[in-house]
Amino acid sequence: MIDFITACDYLGTFAFAISGIRLASAKHFDWFGAYVVGVVTAVGGGTVRDILLNATPFWMEQPSYLVISGLALLYVIAFRKYLIRLNNTFFTFDAIGLGLFVVVGISKTLSFGFPMWVAIVMGTITGSFGGMTRDILINEEPLVFRKDIYALACVFGGIVYYICLQLSVDEAFTQFFAAVSVFIVRVIAVKYHISVPALKGED
Amino acid sequence: MIDFITACDYLGTFAFAISGIRLASAKHFDWFGAYVVGVVTAVGGGTVRDILLNATPFWMEQPSYLVISGLALLYVIAFRKYLIRLNNTFFTFDAIGLGLFVVVGISKTLSFGFPMWVAIVMGTITGSFGGMTRDILINEEPLVFRKDIYALACVFGGIVYYICLQLSVDEAFTQFFAAVSVFIVRVIAVKYHISVPALKGED
Amino acid sequence: MIDFITACDYLGTFAFAISGIRLASAKHFDWFGAYVVGVVTAVGGGTVRDILLNATPFWMEQPSYLVISGLALLYVIAFRKYLIRLNNTFFTFDAIGLGLFVVVGISKTLSFGFPMWVAIVMGTITGSFGGMTRDILINEEPLVFRKDIYALACVFGGIVYYICLQLSVDEAFTQFFAAVSVFIVRVIAVKYHISVPALKGED
Repeated sequence: MIDFITACDYLGTFAFAISGIRLASAKHFDWFGAYVVGVVTAVGGGTVRDILLNATPFWMEQPSYLVISGLALLYVIAFRKYLIRLNNTFFTFDAIGLGLFVVVGISKTLSFGFPMWVAIVMGTITGSFGGMTRDILINEEPLVFRKDIYALACVFGGIVYYICLQLSVDEAFTQFFAAVSVFIVRVIAVKYHISVPALKGED
Repeated sequence: MIDFITACDYLGTFAFAISGIRLASAKHFDWFGAYVVGVVTAVGGGTVRDILLNATPFWMEQPSYLVISGLALLYVIAFRKYLIRLNNTFFTFDAIGLGLFVVVGISKTLSFGFPMWVAIVMGTITGSFGGMTRDILINEEPLVFRKDIYALACVFGGIVYYICLQLSVDEAFTQFFAAVSVFIVRVIAVKYHISVPALKGED
Repeated sequence: MIDFITACDYLGTFAFAISGIRLASAKHFDWFGAYVVGVVTAVGGGTVRDILLNATPFWMEQPSYLVISGLALLYVIAFRKYLIRLNNTFFTFDAIGLGLFVVVGISKTLSFGFPMWVAIVMGTITGSFGGMTRDILINEEPLVFRKDIYALACVFGGIVYYICLQLSVDEAFTQFFAAVSVFIVRVIAVKYHISVPALKGED
C-alpha cells in the first residue's frame, strides 16, 4: 500500500514538473530556469501548505522530488518531439498526482490539529498552488483559475473526505475515495469541457 | 469596542475581497478563481505578516474571512451592474479596513517583541501586500506602488502610532489615532489626486 | 575578517537594491514602490530561505538592510543620469554580493542541521530568488533564468563548498573559495556571453 502511494506521488510529481518545464520552454527559459519552474510546479503547493502549517517543507526531508524533477527535465529534452502525443498520458499522471496531493494535504493538516475546513483549504492549496506559482513565474494569468475544473476538483475531493469521515469510513478508504473523486472530476471536466463559468465583467 | 473593531475588520475584508474579485472578473477568471483572488487580496497581507512573525496565519483560526470573501463573490455576481455606483462606498470601506489592518499588524508585531521599525514594516505589509499579491495573480504591475498614496499611508499610520507611544498616549487611543490617520491620508490622497512622484527612468 | 564580510554584505545589498530600483523606475513605479522593489530584490532570497528554514528573517533583526536600500533609492534619484556609466561597478558589487549571499545561505542551512544538498538549494535560493521576485513584481519573466549564468553560478559555488568540506578545508577558506568561485563564474559568463542554452519549445 505504501509503495502504491509512493508510486502515485512520484508519478504526480513527474507530471507536474513536466507541465512546468514545457510551459517554461515555450517561453524560452534556459535549462536551469525550466528546471526551477518544474520544481516549483511540483513542490510549490505542498511548500505553501507546509509554511502555513509551520512544518518543514516536505521536499527538504529527502531529495526524491528534486531528482524526479531533474528526470522530467531530461525527459523533455530527450523526447521533445514526441511530447504532444503523450498529452493523454501526462494528463492521467497529473490527475492521479492531483488526487494524491489533495489527500496528503488534507491528512497532514488534520494531523496538525486543524479543523476540517482548514484541511480542505490546505488540500486545495497543495493541489493548485504549484500550477498557480508556475503561471506567475512564466508571467501568465493562472490557468488553474480559468480552465476546466482544477482547483474546484480539489475542493470536491475535500468534501468527499469530510463526508467519509462523518460516515466513519476507514481512514485508508476515506483517502482512497477522496483521491479517486478528484481524479474522476478532473477526467470528466476535461473530457466534456466542463468549466466553472467565467465571472462576468462590469462592462 | 471589540464589536466596533470587528465590524471594521469585516467591512475592510469585504471591501478588499470585492476589489480582488472585480479585477479578476475583468480578466475573465472563473468564479472560483475570482474567489481565490478575493481571498488572497483580503488575507494576503496579514498572511505574509504572520509567516514572517512565525505565527499561525490569522484566517486559519476562524472561518469568518473565507466566509466574508464568499459573500463578496455573491455580492459581485448579484449586483454586478450596480457596482460602479458604489465605488465611493467601497473606497470608504477599503480605507477603513486599511487603517484597521495597519494597526492590527503593528500591535501584533509589537506583542511578539519586535522593535517599532519592524512593526511599522509589518503594518505596511499587512495593509499593502494583499493588493500587491492580487495584482501579481491577475498579471498586472502592482497598483499599490503606482497610484495615489497607498503603501505610504500605511507607513504614515505607523509613524503616528510611534509618536503616540512616545507621548504615552493610552493604547486604545494610539490605535484609534493611527487608524484614523491612515484613513485620512487615503481620503485626501484620492480626493486631491495626490501621488508619490514616479521615479524617473534613465532614458 | 568580520568587517570585510560585512562590507561585502552591504555592497551586495546595495547593488541588488539598485538593480530592483532601476528596473522599477523603467516601469514608472513611484518612489515608494521602487523602494519596495529594491528591498525585495535585496532581501527576498534570504527571506525565502529563512522562511523555509523556519528562522526569523535576517532583515528583521537589524535595520541595516532597509537603510541600505533607502540609500540605494537616494543614489538612483540623485545620480540617475550617470548610472549607466557605472554599470560595470554595479555588476562587480552584484557579483560580490551574490558570492557572499550564496555562502551565507549554505552555512546558515548547514547550521540548522540540514544535509549538503538542501544547503546548496538554499544557497541558490538566497542568491537568485530576490531577482526572481523583483521580476515578478515588475511583471516580467524572471531574468535570472534566462540571461547569462546566474542561478547556476550559485549551484556551482555550492558544489565548490561541498568539495572543500570533503577535503577538510578550513571553514573560512571553504567559504572564501565558494564565494570567489561564484564571483568568477559570473564574471566569465558575462564577459564571454556564456548562457545556459534555452530549452527548445515543441513547435
